[in-house]
Amino acid sequence: MYRTHNCGELRLNDVGNAITLCGWVQRSRDLGGMTFIDLRDRYGITQLAFNMDTRPDLCREARKLGREFVIRAIGIVIERSSKNHKIPTGEIEMDVISFEILNAAETPPFTIEDETDGGDELRMKYRYLDIRRSAVRKNLELRHKMAFYTRNYLAGQHFLEVETPYMIKSTPEGARDFVVPSRMNQGEFYALPQSPQTFKQLLMVAGIDRYFQIVRCFRDEDLRADRQPEFTQIDCEMSFVDQEDILSTFEGLARHLFDAVLGVDPGVFQRMTWDDAMKKYGSDKPDLRFDMPFVEMTDLAKGKNFVVFDSSELVVGINATGCAEWSRKQIDELTEFVKRPQIGAKGLIYMKYNTDGTLKSSVDKFYDESELKKWVAAFNAKPGDMILVLSGDAMPTRKALCELRLEMGTRLGLRPKNVYKPLWVVDFPLLEWDEETRRFYAMHHPFTSPKKEDIALLSTNPGKVRANAYDLVINGVEIGGGSVRIFDRSLQNKMFELLGFTPEEAEKQFGFLLNAFRYGAPPHAGIAFGFDRWCALFGGSDSIRDYIAFPKNNAGRDVMIESPSTLAQAQLDELGLLVRQRREGN
Amino acid sequence: MYRTHNCGELRLNDVGNAITLCGWVQRSRDLGGMTFIDLRDRYGITQLAFNMDTRPDLCREARKLGREFVIRAIGIVIERSSKNHKIPTGEIEMDVISFEILNAAETPPFTIEDETDGGDELRMKYRYLDIRRSAVRKNLELRHKMAFYTRNYLAGQHFLEVETPYMIKSTPEGARDFVVPSRMNQGEFYALPQSPQTFKQLLMVAGIDRYFQIVRCFRDEDLRADRQPEFTQIDCEMSFVDQEDILSTFEGLARHLFDAVLGVDPGVFQRMTWDDAMKKYGSDKPDLRFDMPFVEMTDLAKGKNFVVFDSSELVVGINATGCAEWSRKQIDELTEFVKRPQIGAKGLIYMKYNTDGTLKSSVDKFYDESELKKWVAAFNAKPGDMILVLSGDAMPTRKALCELRLEMGTRLGLRPKNVYKPLWVVDFPLLEWDEETRRFYAMHHPFTSPKKEDIALLSTNPGKVRANAYDLVINGVEIGGGSVRIFDRSLQNKMFELLGFTPEEAEKQFGFLLNAFRYGAPPHAGIAFGFDRWCALFGGSDSIRDYIAFPKNNAGRDVMIESPSTLAQAQLDELGLLVRQRREGN
Repeated sequence: MYRTHNCGELRLNDVGNAITLCGWVQRSRDLGGMTFIDLRDRYGITQLAFNMDTRPDLCREARKLGREFVIRAIGIVIERSSKNHKIPTGEIEMDVISFEILNAAETPPFTIEDETDGGDELRMKYRYLDIRRSAVRKNLELRHKMAFYTRNYLAGQHFLEVETPYMIKSTPEGARDFVVPSRMNQGEFYALPQSPQTFKQLLMVAGIDRYFQIVRCFRDEDLRADRQPEFTQIDCEMSFVDQEDILSTFEGLARHLFDAVLGVDPGVFQRMTWDDAMKKYGSDKPDLRFDMPFVEMTDLAKGKNFVVFDSSELVVGINATGCAEWSRKQIDELTEFVKRPQIGAKGLIYMKYNTDGTLKSSVDKFYDESELKKWVAAFNAKPGDMILVLSGDAMPTRKALCELRLEMGTRLGLRPKNVYKPLWVVDFPLLEWDEETRRFYAMHHPFTSPKKEDIALLSTNPGKVRANAYDLVINGVEIGGGSVRIFDRSLQNKMFELLGFTPEEAEKQFGFLLNAFRYGAPPHAGIAFGFDRWCALFGGSDSIRDYIAFPKNNAGRDVMIESPSTLAQAQLDELGLLVRQRREGN
Repeated sequence: MYRTHNCGELRLNDVGNAITLCGWVQRSRDLGGMTFIDLRDRYGITQLAFNMDTRPDLCREARKLGREFVIRAIGIVIERSSKNHKIPTGEIEMDVISFEILNAAETPPFTIEDETDGGDELRMKYRYLDIRRSAVRKNLELRHKMAFYTRNYLAGQHFLEVETPYMIKSTPEGARDFVVPSRMNQGEFYALPQSPQTFKQLLMVAGIDRYFQIVRCFRDEDLRADRQPEFTQIDCEMSFVDQEDILSTFEGLARHLFDAVLGVDPGVFQRMTWDDAMKKYGSDKPDLRFDMPFVEMTDLAKGKNFVVFDSSELVVGINATGCAEWSRKQIDELTEFVKRPQIGAKGLIYMKYNTDGTLKSSVDKFYDESELKKWVAAFNAKPGDMILVLSGDAMPTRKALCELRLEMGTRLGLRPKNVYKPLWVVDFPLLEWDEETRRFYAMHHPFTSPKKEDIALLSTNPGKVRANAYDLVINGVEIGGGSVRIFDRSLQNKMFELLGFTPEEAEKQFGFLLNAFRYGAPPHAGIAFGFDRWCALFGGSDSIRDYIAFPKNNAGRDVMIESPSTLAQAQLDELGLLVRQRREGN
């Protein structure tokens, strides 16, 4: 061993002990008679003291140490004369007797501090230096803990972790696959899994009645800020269960993680149907840290000669408690906010219920006080509140009002990071109609079971069929989702038919699953959690990238290792592949 | 919940309770007055009893149930009149009051029993049925346990599990990579990792001083029986440690797994240098469940006009204790064995030390009794023993004798599956010379550190340099291996040079690692264990495929999902790839 202790563990009761520490030079202070060095490792920082009076040569050598030099120091633990109560080792320091440089370091391209001067791209290029920063390291430690407690909990519930293959088969349904050319079977390709969905269902057919896996998944999408081409799921499946069993089992997992990782009791896990969530919050993942529900006022609003409302499918608003005092400027900001192209509202109507009891709206021309009083009643507004109203086609208006509601929550400080409001959203629609391709798509995936009572609708009104599908939402973030699966071959075939598969296509792509259903498939259901996102939520961040050791950038590139990269021609030849010349200007 | 209990847990003290079970019909026996059904799930088998006298309709329905039907049965636990002491539930049965068929089943293509009539290819095609067999299911349970206890142990030792990327960069050194074409960066490719080697070293540079990961790795090799294109490693790395720390830390892990999974104390972990292992057992992974060491007798053998020995670089033998009575036929079998092309010896010389004290050899013509007595002394043979001798060029002869030694061990019953002899093989050579390409290759990998005392030899006699590299061998199976790493940029550059890299090539492929070494790389070392193989060893099998839920066959195909497969033209177009027409007859 190079060291006897780490840099985070020494305390007053170690005083007098001879110790050896290893680590990186965080900073160095030359005070003339004394030189102090903060030595850092994964566990903390310990101060090394060099005394010019007693060991001048050593002290002079110490002064040459640069930032991020790796050293090994031998010495005695002594009590500090001036203690630092901000760090756990702040009561002691090491009186250094000797040290050696294990490795020198060039000046790093950014400072290795919690607040760094390094930009995003630079920190990604030197991710190995970025991870030295305790803020980043702690994210990885949190992730480790989350995985550890997840496994312990599920194993304790008799779940078996089973590794499913990463080189599987491409299916055109859903997002784009990453593919892997086969050398031994030239012209053929494997695909990297978007999820182990069919494999976990096969494990249920195989009798492994409780399966889980913390597993990498791959999706070749055009990336957004919080998407990664590879991401991690907690993937789970159970047999001989119904929806209620899944919800209670995984509420158990979530409670365990809240407790073990955060030491928090998240209280009741609320339940809400998809329909209610959309109507009340304009979102299938409402943030319930604050209420501020939607109030539909189409009937109240129409027929008063206000053409904006009269021409709208839906008029809907929220009551911003205590905001009657907001200034013109603040309201203008909100108007600008909802008119941003990502949100797309045409404008914002407000009505202030002033503390003196007067009512003031931006549509006073069309609505007299008696009309506005009806608004007050509908919103259950109190003096001092402000009602904010949007209108237009139903779905886009709900989505825009959802954004406005979240913005108001943020501005009013109603979304604290250390408060958690978990919610099960249930009864999702089974199918989504796509106008462009004029066909139904599976809202969850093609293996999701319709509700028994809605099965008859499959033939008459497929769009109305509800699924036994559910999402776990925490603070407006979709942490996971799943469904009860179809386990009947004929119903599964019917689903493929509804989704526009010919029998031949269904057979070619999912024949192995349909075939498995011939031999005694049990009823089963499952769920998958976005592990990166759950880590980010628990860590108090919006970006999953902060919780991935070596993430890719928005162009799908790893800028540290410079990947992807070109292959040698011999490699392409072995695979029987030709790379097409890129067209000019493409 | 569909059930109140599983099929493995009911005992005598449950008698009288009303219960519900779900499972698969294992078998059905119609005894006229009674019908019995063995109901199976993951946890065991419970007998269901149907009585023709008391519930004739139900009994008739039960008789229609075919093998592998999935049913749900409600009834009362009763004591069996004729108990089955072979299964844990054998003292009770369920008096069935009602049941429902959850899913019917066609007759499976092979019997779902421990001893099945299904051939290998058929079982792989219907792997979801194969896993229903308890023999296969138990393998997956063992694997789960191994992973679980590995994680618990390492986390307890402050190792952080960090997920490294699966889409990395292709490097021509080592085995062939599987590659993944990039759509967003056309003409460029990711590679699937053969191991996270460089990433774990970067994590050490990042200050994560104890890393592990149970991780999938990928290698595009022409497959042999026990190779899979994707396989799993327990991958580990530590900073501020030397070789001794690694050996003791991971001896700790191995002991923990022996204890927690098998309940076995494996005794002392022996140590042996690579040189000694090769000389004593002709292998870098000797099976130490029995000794039977090599005895070199070149000097004794030469100069007696026996041209076979005289023309040999090495004459070497083993003493097969107690085999003097072996028949001509048995010895002929051994001779045939060593002459097989995979082994390649030209012939086998034997000398029997009979129990009456006489000596009889196949080379009596050349060696008289006084000479043969010298053999006896060299081998420390006792009356009743037989000495077996091979000769030829040193390395091939050692390898052939290694096979003969193992064969003798097997024939003599000296290799019991429930005895474990762990061994650290240390001091591997750093480099291997390849005659064909006339260059050195790294025996372990290019990041392995030479022994300090051998560094000077790098310039004068590279082939003689020993590495700080080690393997963990159990019962002749290489379970894992690793090395102390180079952490000095100039030494790493020197290694690349020795391996024939130009500075440009080294920079292009490993620039990120060399670059990382500029900024304070700590001394570090690591190890990786073949997880599939370790599972197979603990499970008592030679085939890793038995321990992989969904393995691929020797052509790299998954015959269940029929992968790899062709892609739609549109997918290839998006990737900018053309598949070359296969040449006729290719």
